[in-house]
Amino acid sequence: MARSRLYFDYNATAPLLPVARAAMIEAMDLPGNPSSVHGEGRSARAIVSHARDRVARLLDVPAAQVSFTSGAAEAASHVLTPDFRMGRAPVRVSLLLVCAVEHAVVHAGGRFAADQITVLGVDSDGRLDLAALEAALKAHDPASGQVMLALQVANNETGVVQPVREAAAIVRAHHGLLVVDAVQAPGRMPLSLAELGADFMILSAHKLGGPKGVGALISAGETLMPAPLITGGGQEKGHRSGTENLAGIAGFGAAAEAALGSLEQVAALARLRDTMEAGMREAAPDIVIHSGNAERLANTSFFSLPGLKAETAQIAFDMEGVAVSAGSACSSGKIGESHVLKAMGADAGLGAIRISLGHVHTDAEIDAFLEVFRRINARRVERLGAEAAA
Amino acid sequence: MARSRLYFDYNATAPLLPVARAAMIEAMDLPGNPSSVHGEGRSARAIVSHARDRVARLLDVPAAQVSFTSGAAEAASHVLTPDFRMGRAPVRVSLLLVCAVEHAVVHAGGRFAADQITVLGVDSDGRLDLAALEAALKAHDPASGQVMLALQVANNETGVVQPVREAAAIVRAHHGLLVVDAVQAPGRMPLSLAELGADFMILSAHKLGGPKGVGALISAGETLMPAPLITGGGQEKGHRSGTENLAGIAGFGAAAEAALGSLEQVAALARLRDTMEAGMREAAPDIVIHSGNAERLANTSFFSLPGLKAETAQIAFDMEGVAVSAGSACSSGKIGESHVLKAMGADAGLGAIRISLGHVHTDAEIDAFLEVFRRINARRVERLGAEAAA
Repeated sequence: MARSRLYFDYNATAPLLPVARAAMIEAMDLPGNPSSVHGEGRSARAIVSHARDRVARLLDVPAAQVSFTSGAAEAASHVLTPDFRMGRAPVRVSLLLVCAVEHAVVHAGGRFAADQITVLGVDSDGRLDLAALEAALKAHDPASGQVMLALQVANNETGVVQPVREAAAIVRAHHGLLVVDAVQAPGRMPLSLAELGADFMILSAHKLGGPKGVGALISAGETLMPAPLITGGGQEKGHRSGTENLAGIAGFGAAAEAALGSLEQVAALARLRDTMEAGMREAAPDIVIHSGNAERLANTSFFSLPGLKAETAQIAFDMEGVAVSAGSACSSGKIGESHVLKAMGADAGLGAIRISLGHVHTDAEIDAFLEVFRRINARRVERLGAEAAA
Repeated sequence: MARSRLYFDYNATAPLLPVARAAMIEAMDLPGNPSSVHGEGRSARAIVSHARDRVARLLDVPAAQVSFTSGAAEAASHVLTPDFRMGRAPVRVSLLLVCAVEHAVVHAGGRFAADQITVLGVDSDGRLDLAALEAALKAHDPASGQVMLALQVANNETGVVQPVREAAAIVRAHHGLLVVDAVQAPGRMPLSLAELGADFMILSAHKLGGPKGVGALISAGETLMPAPLITGGGQEKGHRSGTENLAGIAGFGAAAEAALGSLEQVAALARLRDTMEAGMREAAPDIVIHSGNAERLANTSFFSLPGLKAETAQIAFDMEGVAVSAGSACSSGKIGESHVLKAMGADAGLGAIRISLGHVHTDAEIDAFLEVFRRINARRVERLGAEAAA
């Protein structure tokens, strides 16, 4: 390819930041196991400890409240469980409430049985129906156990920001637990576990410029914790066994620090996305930008073009050198109907295209993208015209 | 430190091989998510596929029988479960038999309840008591479900090689399942899932020269599989969700290929270890080398020096520039009594020192180690003499 490609799929995975790459290589070159007592072990342990401090600062929590995992999927399977412990005493959760537009890892419900999970609807922008939440909490019998709500900070497809603080107040009034999936938020909006009012938070390193294969479960305290999912050697204070992913954790730490720093550039990122959307609207006045009038992540645009199947459009963009997605990249090669569009009551038949930018992108790249967009849109308009004439 | 250190703790973690380091950096520099449909996604997917082929060749299985995990602890928590599926039909396992000298991740028993686990004893060399296995299988009521045996290929502390083929024949005669923890074996002895007669095998990348934070569950077929531990996006054919640890998997693949190649050097490794043990015996005729008369991994030596606490000796070795371990490195800073020594009926009070070598080590390094050994031993002999005189 003569021209360099445009990678516009940061919500699927963000390319590794140079600072994360450097931290990984430094960690890769250390020989020790963080659990070993000798000098090599202590050096490895120091890497984990430094990274934990950096991730903790991103969420504004003490480092002891950060447990490293192999990613968001593991963190979700870990924390979405009926079995908690308050110190040594068991705590039972008997109902999991899941917002309809959650990511597949949360929809899977972790260790809850299917009949312990209730899905809550959203409005046409994809925001949680707070009245439905209140009603579900009221209908629950507290004698059977606690209620847990799982709610995203921001949606991976539309970028819509959920009313987490409002939901937290309602959950708290009913003595429930709140788990927030913050995977898409770091570096794109300020994030504080305490301000959100969450009991637990799920993070993934590779969505914020760190490596794939590492994430974290953040807890609001050290006492109430889910039953371990991975047992054995007792690492992470017994909450998550297994030799630590040293290079991955080091990269996560460096990327977390960078994400905190990049919050200053969020306004510029939003301006870039808005310029892009204005250009698309100009070329295709019939474009539908999902959740376009709601508060969204600064980097995300999720749109449908009437008459154009998202899957087809994605391939066309790819052939023109632009990497975008049609829905979420969650399992090998599979593109299903967007459950997010369906929950919002949008026409899900043709799907939608997701563009998700990074802080690295420039006006010139947006211009280059719009050129491709106009070409693909012109072919659509031409075809629709021919079909109307036929 | 003027002199370079001697890292003799390969069973805790092996330093990253240069080929694995290069493969990781190549993967780190790719922007895509292996689940994405665009060009960047396809390139990432190709990395996973290539690594899967390489790991499969190490175990002599088709690539489709390799599921990547975040390490051996996850693979153990995944496969040690009462809930299996044969296609879509549930298969129930009601009893887990665990050899007494298994690693902590297997002893934890995964998703089995404590009362579903029976520990089987070992002989004085730490080898599984096959008569006890036979008796346990005979006593089991097959109406309640199947039996599973979890057995190491080789022990992480002593290096003793277990009678896996013999155990497999007994388990098979009783229609049970065999899970082997092969974590310490690759590159140190030939390894074939089929020849061992195992149904499942647990592997860890960082013990064979790959990165920490990645491992695999190998299955003897594609039909009978444990219920997923981590659910969500449906990666790894639905057996293990979560965006793949791309750099880790790439490094694992490269290290697996190197481990297969290094089998030619096992005899040289054994000679090095034997030279070392001969030197230690000469300096300390009262040394006890655990499992010394049984078949052991070529790289491992586990010994006690009367009157010298292993923990103290380890610190002395560390201060003299030699990294060794006292038991296994399985959780932060914790050195407990060796459950392996206890199970073998050895005097576990003072513990034992483990030396575990890599293929990189040389005669000159063994000489340098023996110099340190003689100094530490001389202080022991002096102290014991003084105590006897007092």
